[in-house]
Amino acid sequence: MPQVIDIREKLSTFNSHWTPKVIAELNGQHVKVAKLLGSFDWHFHEDEDELFWVISGKLIIHFRDSSIELHPGQLCVIPKGIEHQPVAEEECEIALFEPASTLNTGNLKNARTVSHPDHI
Amino acid sequence: MPQVIDIREKLSTFNSHWTPKVIAELNGQHVKVAKLLGSFDWHFHEDEDELFWVISGKLIIHFRDSSIELHPGQLCVIPKGIEHQPVAEEECEIALFEPASTLNTGNLKNARTVSHPDHI
Repeated sequence: MPQVIDIREKLSTFNSHWTPKVIAELNGQHVKVAKLLGSFDWHFHEDEDELFWVISGKLIIHFRDSSIELHPGQLCVIPKGIEHQPVAEEECEIALFEPASTLNTGNLKNARTVSHPDHI
Repeated sequence: MPQVIDIREKLSTFNSHWTPKVIAELNGQHVKVAKLLGSFDWHFHEDEDELFWVISGKLIIHFRDSSIELHPGQLCVIPKGIEHQPVAEEECEIALFEPASTLNTGNLKNARTVSHPDHI
């Protein structure tokens, strides 16, 4: 039977930054949580739209021609193909909704790429 | 460019119960918000898993052989085919993540069916 998933409880189980963890799966999509700190790499997702939902802290997302700032209870959808750079000046906790196929670094493969995110 | 979507601001724009509103769309999925009060109809979704995420209040979801209780910051995924009945003893605000094709009443068509939810 369906289980209760507590976002803050899930976030309390790890400390690492930029390492998304899967907390739920439905219709081929993942719900993930992550902790962010500092500047991530500029990247885009070839085939996947991506949703960022801020749980705590502040998330800045830079685009090539603008930026947005997200606070707790705010979200945004980044359409596929759009280059973006997430920046968290202080630690920020987020939830993500995206297809299960989505790589955190999108078109890049580097030390921050998490090919097989943990399920927690 | 992507816009900031504020969940509480979206919820403040309407008062009706059991009338999901679309606040974001990505990868063929909808993010919706809704206000619930009272008992909804028992139903299931033939083809769609459904995610309930409580923003405020308390949501009880009955299944044929068990029940769960969701508080703010908690979510659950109801797999397709599973009969369920959402119940909010007091007003409850939720976010939903589900395929754009999902009808709120699932296999039922009745006065509460919202075939074409508003986009707000």
